[in-house]
This record gives sequence, structure tokens and C-alpha cells, in this order.
Amino acid sequence: MNRAPSEAVFLKACRGEPTPVTPIWLLRQAGRYQKEYRELRSKVSLLELCRSPDLAAQVTVSAARKLGVDAAIIFADILLVLEPLGLEISFEEGEGPRILNPVRSAADLARLRTFDVGALAHVGEAVRKASAALAPLPVIGFAGAPFTLASYAIEGGSSKDHALTKALLHRDPGAFRELLAILARATGAYLSSQVEAGAEAVQLFDSWVGSLSPDAYREHVLPHSKTAISLVRPRVPVIHFGTGTAAFLEDFRDAGGDVVGLDFRVELDRAWDRLGPASRVMGNLDPAVLLAGRDAIRREAKKVLDRARGRAGHVFNLGHGIFHETPEDDARALVDIVHELSRR
Amino acid sequence: MNRAPSEAVFLKACRGEPTPVTPIWLLRQAGRYQKEYRELRSKVSLLELCRSPDLAAQVTVSAARKLGVDAAIIFADILLVLEPLGLEISFEEGEGPRILNPVRSAADLARLRTFDVGALAHVGEAVRKASAALAPLPVIGFAGAPFTLASYAIEGGSSKDHALTKALLHRDPGAFRELLAILARATGAYLSSQVEAGAEAVQLFDSWVGSLSPDAYREHVLPHSKTAISLVRPRVPVIHFGTGTAAFLEDFRDAGGDVVGLDFRVELDRAWDRLGPASRVMGNLDPAVLLAGRDAIRREAKKVLDRARGRAGHVFNLGHGIFHETPEDDARALVDIVHELSRR
Repeated sequence: MNRAPSEAVFLKACRGEPTPVTPIWLLRQAGRYQKEYRELRSKVSLLELCRSPDLAAQVTVSAARKLGVDAAIIFADILLVLEPLGLEISFEEGEGPRILNPVRSAADLARLRTFDVGALAHVGEAVRKASAALAPLPVIGFAGAPFTLASYAIEGGSSKDHALTKALLHRDPGAFRELLAILARATGAYLSSQVEAGAEAVQLFDSWVGSLSPDAYREHVLPHSKTAISLVRPRVPVIHFGTGTAAFLEDFRDAGGDVVGLDFRVELDRAWDRLGPASRVMGNLDPAVLLAGRDAIRREAKKVLDRARGRAGHVFNLGHGIFHETPEDDARALVDIVHELSRR
Repeated sequence: MNRAPSEAVFLKACRGEPTPVTPIWLLRQAGRYQKEYRELRSKVSLLELCRSPDLAAQVTVSAARKLGVDAAIIFADILLVLEPLGLEISFEEGEGPRILNPVRSAADLARLRTFDVGALAHVGEAVRKASAALAPLPVIGFAGAPFTLASYAIEGGSSKDHALTKALLHRDPGAFRELLAILARATGAYLSSQVEAGAEAVQLFDSWVGSLSPDAYREHVLPHSKTAISLVRPRVPVIHFGTGTAAFLEDFRDAGGDVVGLDFRVELDRAWDRLGPASRVMGNLDPAVLLAGRDAIRREAKKVLDRARGRAGHVFNLGHGIFHETPEDDARALVDIVHELSRR
């Protein structure tokens, strides 16, 4: 097992190289669907967990080992990056996260602080600890994409329709551009700090980008995602994941990610054809299938693998985060099924 | 103004015939963004409003007149059709609707009552009254599509991710099929009753269909939408509207609607090209634009019209329901702008 890290099947697939099995990991693979995680969270808050390198690493490592996946993703919250900018975040149990001083105008922008990545050193430390524990299994770093972060900053929390975000985009494109530029630089620096700490790949999450029209994505969002991705140093594979991207997949690809993360709303083969043969893709089982029992899991996982047709450059994953109601054993079963069905 | 109803620009566009201006109406054009509506609702509940043919017609007529749109849509709630099947619905103020006895198994299905369209005669009566008041302006009838209705019936209310719905679909496809078949027949009968009462077009709303993978749509949903549409008698134009349909627009078209309603997540011209030149389309301005002021409204409405390039068979609309925060005057302004910019 003393292979060099770059021989990990997950990283080979990210580079488009053939692998003996299709690598797999699961979006939100450490989280509330796990008994061990729920027990820990009954003792510490989400912020306490995120800010403790030991606990964040422990949760990361434990989930990867239990599942038998081919990569771990560092446990952190997408909103951590907003705090060093001066946004006050409240994570009340039972509610979603809330931003107490949302950004809704040029005046709000003016009071943002200069981003200091040092404030997030605990995330790098967690990456370092998780990598040491799991090697040669790769650890993935991650950050929210500028648009998704902006949507939280503007709405003041989660939102069903992102009405305020899009209203600002259309009413004051200059202020919107400035906010996204700030977030793109912060994201680039944050991802780089995780790579420096040992992350062998990073993922940029654009969870809410599907609330945009293709025109708005291209004009107001794409340039900033591109900036964030281009700032990742040293260079490791960048996974660019978004949901609701079906209508502008080609533009999404053009942001520059090495691997395009597909949600479950597209057919993997048709999406891959649109992206081009040199592309690498991640996805895209509907996480709801994990609530439907082993027969359905095997049947639907096989459909995804059949669409991939064994092409090099496929990382198996869910097309969205795992549901809290998922039986832990069935998540593990999916990993085994994908390894079994894809063995070449 | 004594033109025959079939000369209405909205109906001509639905038939793919050239029109002197692009017709427009707005999804949820009667609703909470209007002062008059809010005043009425401070006195009567949503169910009281829906069950009173006089009040439902009044709200329908008033919105259409105030906006200057080219069609009215009957005011009703998408869930009304579930009650005659034996589902108990609660509309508490401030929460979304709730189904008190959700359908989650074959056993739950067995206790559904035979659908009697007579229980919804008040909707037909409202259509009759609104049509009489507005003639020759056409009144559109509507119903939820089988999948969207099933998602409420299964989840017991609104849902962010439709996890239970999709779990049932994958775990027990037979029970899911039976539920959708029941809903398809009910929907067909309900839409027909509205046509008989004077609706000159009907719309089938599949609001949540974007939570499905293309495979799941094709296999488990499309056949039932097709059945519902095929049952509409006498035959009038059927608008088939869905959101999140970008990845399976061709399948969505194959359900048989005369006009395909596009959400704002697709580019109107690219979508139209995929649907084919004989298709008619409705859409697709992002309703968030109505929160961004007149300059943005004019600029973004022009983009949609530019993509339509004056082709016959375009009904202008929002790509999703109007937001509660929309200034009434700006909704009216959009209607005027579309008429002005599209005059041929």
C-alpha cells in the first residue's frame, strides 16, 4: 500500500487515465445520516466542529473509512469563508445558517473587510491531519463558488428562489460584479491554502447556480468562477460541481475545472458528449435512490455506469448531497456495488 | 372589439399563427403581489376564495384588467383536485399547504376515493363567470400535472428535494404508476370540465418535474402527463409548463402539449430549435427581473423577444410564478413594454 499518492484511482480518473475500477466518493459523505456524526453533534455545535482541526479531521477520516470510498473530502462549512470578510454568521440548530449583516448594496460592500486567509488556518490544519491519517487516500479540499457564496451573503441565508440575489444582479450589475470579484479572490486563496496543507484535489461547489438563466450565468458569474479556479496554487485537479447546469454545461466547463461535477438532472453520456471527449466528469446518481433499497440502488448505479461505458475519466458520485434519511449501510452498499460493477 | 374569441392574439399564437404583437400573460398574475388581493385575503381564506365562484372570478378578472394582459388564468389552487380523491388538505396561513393523510404505499392508494369531477363544479362556475366578464379575452383553465400532484400527495406538502416521492418511484414503481394513473385521469376530467365551462385554453403545470432525472421522467412520468393531455375534451390549446426541464425538453414536448412552457433556465431560441419549428413556446423571463426596476425590465424583456425573433407561436410569460415582492406597477410596465417592443 506504499504507492505514491498520484497512483490513487480517484486522482488518475481526475487526470483522465484508465483505472481498474471506477472511483467513487459521496457528496456530504460525512454528515447527519451517520450515527457517529449525530452523536458528536449532540455535544458540539457545527461551528465548534468546523473550528477544531482534530474533530473536523476525525469526522472526515471516519466517514471515508466506513464507506470504503476512494477519496475523502474535508469536513467544513461552505460559509466559513464569509466570516473573515466581516459577515456575521449564525448557525442556529434546526434553522439554516443566517447572515446577520447581509450585503445588498454598494454601501454594504464598502464595509467588507480585506480577506485574510490566515483566519481559516484551522481548515488547513484539519486537511493536514486528515491527509496524514488517510494517506495514500487523497483528501479533497473545497470551497463555495462565488455565486453561491454571494447568494448567501445577499439573501442572508438559504433561499428557495434567490430573488434578492438576482434582483441585485439585474439592478446594479456593478455592485454585483464587485462582490463576486471579492469572493473569487477569497475563494482562490482559501482553496490554495488547503492545497498547501495537503489536499490533492479541490472542489468548487456552485450549488445554487441553477437558479440563473444561461445569459446571466455567462455574463455575471462565469468570469468569477474562472478567476477562483485559476488562482488555485499549487495546481491540483479542480472539480467544478454545480446543480441545474443542464442548459449551460458548455459555459460551466469553460470556467476551467479539470472535472465537471454533474447533478442527477442530466444524462451522464449526453452531458459528457456535450463537454467533449477530453473532459472528465463526476456524477451522477440521484441521492433519492439511496432511500429506495438495495435492488433500486444496484439497478440505478448500473444505469450510471452503463452511460459512462467504462470511459476513462469518470468519478462516480451522487448528483447532489446525500440525504439525512439515508441508511448508512446502504451508502456503504453503493460504494461496494460501484466497485464490483465497474471492475475491469 | 366584437372579434370572435378565436381571433384573440393569445389563441392565435397558441395555434402558431402570426400576430400583430406578441401576446403576454403572467404566471400567478392574480396573487399576493397585488394590494387588492391582499385586502380580500385578509377577509377570506384561500379555500374560501377558491370555493366561491364569484370571488375566484373577481380576482381573475381584476388581475387581467389591471395588467392589460392578453389572457386571464382562472384563480384556483393546484391542490383542489386532490380533495375529491379523499386527501385532506390544510392551508394554514404562513405555512405551505399540508396533506394530512399522505399517500406513501400501496395500502394508502387503496383507500383513495373514486374521483368525482362534480366536486369541483365551483371551478367551472368561476371559469364561466370570468369568461362572461372578460370576453373576448380568453380565460385559461389549469391543473397540476400528475407528477407534481403526486409529489404533494406523497410528501404531505411542499418539499425542497422530493426525496420521498422519488424513493417511492424507485422502491415501488407499481404503486407509483397506479397513483400517477389515477391523477392523470382526474386531471384530464378536471381540465375538460373547465373547457366545457368556457376555458379557451388550458395549462398543465408540472412545477416540480425538474427534480427528476431524464430517465425517471421518461419512464415514470411522461406517459401519465400524456394521458392527462390526451383526455382534454373538447380540444383547446394545451400549454404544458414545467421548470427544470432543460435536460429532457424533447421528452417534455412529446407529452403532447400544443405550447411548451419554458422556465427561465433555458435560452428561448435554443430551446425552440430543440423542440422543432412547428412548436409553439411560452416564456421565459426570470421573474426576479421584475424586482430590478424598469431599465432592467426593458433590457431583459428585449433579450427574450430578440431570441424569439418575431417567430409566430410565441406567448410571452415569466419563466416561473411572479414573486410576492413584485411592484404592481412594474408588472403592468412589463406588459406594456412587451406590447411596445413586439409591435410588427
